[in-house]
Amino acid sequence: MFNKIAIIGCGLIGSSILRSIKEYKIAKKVNIFDKSKDVFTFLKKENLIEGTNDINQSVRDADLIVIATPLGAYKEILLSIKDDLKKNIILTDTGSAKKEINKIIENLNLKEISWIASHPIAGTEESGPQAGFHKLFKDRYCIISPSQEAKKEDVEKLKKFWEKIGCKVKTMSFEEHDHILSLTSHLPHAIAYNLVRTAISKEDQFKKEIIQYSAGGLRDFTRIASSDPTMWKDIFKDNSENILKALDNFSNNLVELKEAIKEKNESKLIQIFSKTKNVRKEIIEAGQDTNKPDFGRKKD
Amino acid sequence: MFNKIAIIGCGLIGSSILRSIKEYKIAKKVNIFDKSKDVFTFLKKENLIEGTNDINQSVRDADLIVIATPLGAYKEILLSIKDDLKKNIILTDTGSAKKEINKIIENLNLKEISWIASHPIAGTEESGPQAGFHKLFKDRYCIISPSQEAKKEDVEKLKKFWEKIGCKVKTMSFEEHDHILSLTSHLPHAIAYNLVRTAISKEDQFKKEIIQYSAGGLRDFTRIASSDPTMWKDIFKDNSENILKALDNFSNNLVELKEAIKEKNESKLIQIFSKTKNVRKEIIEAGQDTNKPDFGRKKD
Repeated sequence: MFNKIAIIGCGLIGSSILRSIKEYKIAKKVNIFDKSKDVFTFLKKENLIEGTNDINQSVRDADLIVIATPLGAYKEILLSIKDDLKKNIILTDTGSAKKEINKIIENLNLKEISWIASHPIAGTEESGPQAGFHKLFKDRYCIISPSQEAKKEDVEKLKKFWEKIGCKVKTMSFEEHDHILSLTSHLPHAIAYNLVRTAISKEDQFKKEIIQYSAGGLRDFTRIASSDPTMWKDIFKDNSENILKALDNFSNNLVELKEAIKEKNESKLIQIFSKTKNVRKEIIEAGQDTNKPDFGRKKD
Repeated sequence: MFNKIAIIGCGLIGSSILRSIKEYKIAKKVNIFDKSKDVFTFLKKENLIEGTNDINQSVRDADLIVIATPLGAYKEILLSIKDDLKKNIILTDTGSAKKEINKIIENLNLKEISWIASHPIAGTEESGPQAGFHKLFKDRYCIISPSQEAKKEDVEKLKKFWEKIGCKVKTMSFEEHDHILSLTSHLPHAIAYNLVRTAISKEDQFKKEIIQYSAGGLRDFTRIASSDPTMWKDIFKDNSENILKALDNFSNNLVELKEAIKEKNESKLIQIFSKTKNVRKEIIEAGQDTNKPDFGRKKD
C-alpha cells in the first residue's frame, strides 16, 4: 500500500500503528523516530523496527508520515522535517485537537503535500510503547479532516490505510471535530480530573476510607483522570475555546442542580436524572458501549 | 442462622439478598413485601418466595427485617410495621444515606429492637428484581452503623449475615458513613448526571455525532448517570448537606482549573493531572479496581 511509512512518536498510539502496519503488511518499510532512546531501544528489541533513531532519515523517502506525539511537539517536529519531505506525500497525525496544528501547517506553507489530519478515537489509560497492541483500532472510529490542498486520491488512500488497521473512518471539518471532541472527550476529562482532585484531598482524615470505598462511583472517574498529563495539558491548550465554553455550560447546569438539592426539589431532580438515563440507551443503541452491568465487572 | 427473615422492597438489592439467603440457606423462612405486584409475581414465578404480598404478615415473627427500598419509602414502611415487630429482633436496611433514617427511627422510639443500619456497597446500573443475582455481594464492602441501643450480640449476628452472603463488613458511625459516601459515590453521581446533561443537549446540531463518538470518555459517565432516578433523588435529599459541601469544593476547584486553561498555564495543568494519576494507583493497590486497560474493554 505504501513503500515507506514514517511514524514520529511511538508511544501507545504510534507503537500500535507500527504493530498494525507490520501485522497487515501495509508498507515495505517503516521507520520511526522517538525523542526517547528507551522507546527506540524497546521497539528494536521487540523486532518491530530497523534503522536508526534519526528524525530526518526516518521521513526521507517516506510516502506516508504519521505524527503520533503529544500536540505540543508538532511545531518543532515539522520545522525539523520540512526540508526532508518528498513531493506528493501524505502527512497525517493522531492528535485530539486540530485548530493549532492547522495554524502551524498553514504558516509553514508546505508545497505539494496532502495534509490530512487524523484522529483515531482509540486508547487506554496507559501510555508508552509497552502498552501498544495491534488490535487497538479494531472497530474504533477514526475522524479525518483533509486540508483544502489535499488531493482526493490521497484522502481515499489514507482512508483505506485506517480501514485496513481496523477503523471506521468518518470525514469532518477541523472545526466540527474540535467542537464534537470537546464534548465527548475533553469536557469529561476535565471533569474527571477535577472530581478526583476534589474527592481525594490530603486534608481529609478519611482519605484512606475514601479510596477503600471508591467502588461506589469514584473509581470509574479515576481511570480517565489517570490519562497522560502531558498529552492532556496540550489538548486543553489547543482546544481551550471549545473546552471553556463547555465548562461554562457545565457550571451553569451545576448551579441549577445545586439549587434543586438545596430546595429538596424532588420533581426537578427526577427530571434531570431521567433525561440522562435515556442518553445511556442511545449510546448503547449506537454501539458505543455494551449494556452489560457494571462494565462487565459483574461477578460470575 | 435466622428463623424468619423479612425483606421489604425486592428490587436489584432486595432480590439479590433474597437469592443469597436461599443459596446459602441462611433462614428457614423468608417473606417479602414489595409495593409492586409485578415484583411479587415475578419472584413467585421464579420460585424464590412463598406466602402473600402483605407487609404486616411478612414482618410478623421475623427475627431479621431488611428494608431495601429507596430511602423515601422508609417512613411509611416503618409506620406500617412498627406494631407488628417482635421484641429482640434485628432491624436493618441497605440505604446509601443514614442521617434521615436515624431521625425517623429515633422519633418512632422503638423499644427492645436492635436497629443497625447497613450499606452493602454493591449494585449495577440496572434496577428491578430481574437484575438481581446472588453473587452481587461477593467481595464487596458492607458498612454497618449500629445504633446505641443495638445489642452487641445482634451486631455480631448481622455482621455474620453479611459475611455469609459474601461481604467484607466494616463498622463506622452514621456521620462518618455519610461523609465518606458523599465523596466516593454521591458527588461522582451528581457530577456524572450534570456532565451527561451538559454534553448531550437537544439544541446541539451534532447531538448524533456526540453520541457516536462517546467512547472518548463520555460513555463512562453515562453508566453512572443511568442509575435509578427515584433512588438517587432520595439520596440527594437525605445527604444534602455533605453533598452540597462537596459540590462547593468541586466548583472552587473548577474555577482554578478554568483559570489554568484560560491562561494556558502548562505547569499548573500538569500539576493537577499528575496528582490524580497517583490516586488511580492507590485505588488499584487497595484492590478497588483492576489495572486492566479500559476496564477490560481492550480488544483481544
